Amino acid sequence: MTATSLLGEIADVGRDRKRGGYSRHAFDQAEGELRTWFVERAQRLSLDVETDRNGNIWAWWGTPGPDAVVTGSHLDSVPGGGAFDGPLGVVSALDAVEILQAKGFRPGKPFAVVVFAEEEGGRFGVPCLGSRLLTGTIDADKARALKDPDGITFAEASAKAGHDPERFGADPEALGRIGRFLELHVEQGRGLIDLGSPVAVGDTVIAHGRWRFSFSGQGNHAGATLIGDRHDPMLPAAAVVGAARRVAKATGDGRATVGRLVPTPGGTNVIASTVDLWLDARVPGGDRTRALVAELSALAKEAAAEEGCLVEIAEESYSDTVTFDAKLRDDLGKWLGGAPELPTGAGHDAGILAGFVPAGMLYVRNPTGVSHAPEEFAEAEDVDHGARALATVLEHMST
Amino acid sequence: MTATSLLGEIADVGRDRKRGGYSRHAFDQAEGELRTWFVERAQRLSLDVETDRNGNIWAWWGTPGPDAVVTGSHLDSVPGGGAFDGPLGVVSALDAVEILQAKGFRPGKPFAVVVFAEEEGGRFGVPCLGSRLLTGTIDADKARALKDPDGITFAEASAKAGHDPERFGADPEALGRIGRFLELHVEQGRGLIDLGSPVAVGDTVIAHGRWRFSFSGQGNHAGATLIGDRHDPMLPAAAVVGAARRVAKATGDGRATVGRLVPTPGGTNVIASTVDLWLDARVPGGDRTRALVAELSALAKEAAAEEGCLVEIAEESYSDTVTFDAKLRDDLGKWLGGAPELPTGAGHDAGILAGFVPAGMLYVRNPTGVSHAPEEFAEAEDVDHGARALATVLEHMST
Repeated sequence: MTATSLLGEIADVGRDRKRGGYSRHAFDQAEGELRTWFVERAQRLSLDVETDRNGNIWAWWGTPGPDAVVTGSHLDSVPGGGAFDGPLGVVSALDAVEILQAKGFRPGKPFAVVVFAEEEGGRFGVPCLGSRLLTGTIDADKARALKDPDGITFAEASAKAGHDPERFGADPEALGRIGRFLELHVEQGRGLIDLGSPVAVGDTVIAHGRWRFSFSGQGNHAGATLIGDRHDPMLPAAAVVGAARRVAKATGDGRATVGRLVPTPGGTNVIASTVDLWLDARVPGGDRTRALVAELSALAKEAAAEEGCLVEIAEESYSDTVTFDAKLRDDLGKWLGGAPELPTGAGHDAGILAGFVPAGMLYVRNPTGVSHAPEEFAEAEDVDHGARALATVLEHMST
Repeated sequence: MTATSLLGEIADVGRDRKRGGYSRHAFDQAEGELRTWFVERAQRLSLDVETDRNGNIWAWWGTPGPDAVVTGSHLDSVPGGGAFDGPLGVVSALDAVEILQAKGFRPGKPFAVVVFAEEEGGRFGVPCLGSRLLTGTIDADKARALKDPDGITFAEASAKAGHDPERFGADPEALGRIGRFLELHVEQGRGLIDLGSPVAVGDTVIAHGRWRFSFSGQGNHAGATLIGDRHDPMLPAAAVVGAARRVAKATGDGRATVGRLVPTPGGTNVIASTVDLWLDARVPGGDRTRALVAELSALAKEAAAEEGCLVEIAEESYSDTVTFDAKLRDDLGKWLGGAPELPTGAGHDAGILAGFVPAGMLYVRNPTGVSHAPEEFAEAEDVDHGARALATVLEHMST
């Protein structure tokens, strides 16, 4: 088996006929199938599988214990996402274990492959939920109460999937066993294309977060309500979409995106009563992300007031700038014969864990740079190169 | 029974827990319950019920035949709509029949209460679908192919509800039986509030239509994609929302609304690959509605090009200005002791039928003017007054 053939095994799970690509969301049927598949695949490598208090799966090679070398990623996707974001890190970890087993290597330290739950926040809104819970970075009560678009809470969905939501929360025992964490991931921008290298070492993660803007006005008839009588929340919402672009552009290097916007009730001949939109904002360095959001919040309030509407703004998640462990970065570069270092604008579980244990990342080349879309891609040659690179560094790390 | 008590009987059918109000859509479960309820109620008045080739229900008082007096409305709603828009005309018709029966009146002409299918276009996008099909105003193939938001065609949904979609289309026999059509409806603006009258006679319906703007760009990662590399269809979509308001305002008396906007895939950390929005536009007089849409279409193309996106614009429905039958209007006003006349910005089945038979409308006062929203309201006193007014004019019409 190779990383590429493993991706082939799950190529039909969770396809989204409507959006294209894959929709594999925390504790839904597709993600459940992938979990079952992972457990079966790990057991075939004689790994011992356990699920922790927060729904993350651990597959141990040998006896669990402290100072463990841990690698892995996630199996969930954004709505209509690609085949690589998440699964590539998981299949590469399985491939790497098989490569090391085939050459008779036995790790000198505890060693685990991990699958984190709800990394994308594609269902419950908060990204890296499994690693945030594990590390205590999110309050368990807050997590339990998170709702999916159908109003189902994270607690309800977890219970239905066989997890006990009462046990959610900081897990010092599981965290305490991690000596170093390494996540392999498909590159999500165009950073590696011109560097002539199939693999890069993660450098930094830009500060990033998600903010929900909830506009409320007066639902009404689209034909019978005169323009002067309207309090249409779609107007300030649209103003924020445009302003987000202008404000992000003005930062020079920041990004601000509105990819999710939901008018209620959503009828063609109906002035909306509320519009919710989600702002994804990321600006390199210091407090610039929150400063951008503060500027947009002020503009949103002004635009809402002008239309006789109200707006409430809530920070749903925020992650500060992460710089991955310097020693691990140096080692990874050395073991991989001088692989380049690369910053990223994308968040990862490795970024959450980096606040607690030495953590690092490997990126695999993406020839278009497109990610979070059906067109996301990596050449089979690069995928298998990535898995071999992962095997190489894991051997060094666990010797 | 009164119109008010009949509304009470269906007060729990199709409540929308998420949006508030009611979601009763063509051939869904709630609308099916209302159909069953209507048939049972009509039969209790000894009316003979039949469903025509296009899913419209006819309840005949006496023998069906030509030159019939027909009254009725619809039972479907917009998503998250109010309790009155549609059902008020149906329950008032039933109430009127009972009032006339109680006084021993027997109509001197064929007489029917009708319930039209999919008046709101809340599920399949084209309003007044039942009356458009009946009159041949929409091509049957086009209607059959209309899709709901889940991709189910009108043909599929109809077949599932027990109708034969092959029989859809112009029904000269059913149309030919209508002598005059009268629809009672809750007022959907503030026109009646200051007139001191619980009931008004319909005058004109503003030209109106629906246009779908489909923007396509490149789905991508919200964090890893630099602003300069983006082709984000949300940007031109938001520009159209703002422009629709500006352009409508500039007309002086026009209305333009975007109440439905759907980004795909709709993830928070995902640049959308496509955004569909629906424009509802209505400008009194001549070709001014289509002129407004032409102006907005040009703006949309410009905004899309600026972002490296494409846009396709499709007219989903259009109804020209309607002036209700002058003789019927005069008669209605006279029979109701000088009820005022009122124009409306809202479309109705009566507006479709007006192109083929003498048609008219009665509006019942709405003390807030709010419609297509859970807050839509009419006082019980006005509701029952409306039903009695309807009985009065139907007696005149069918004598």
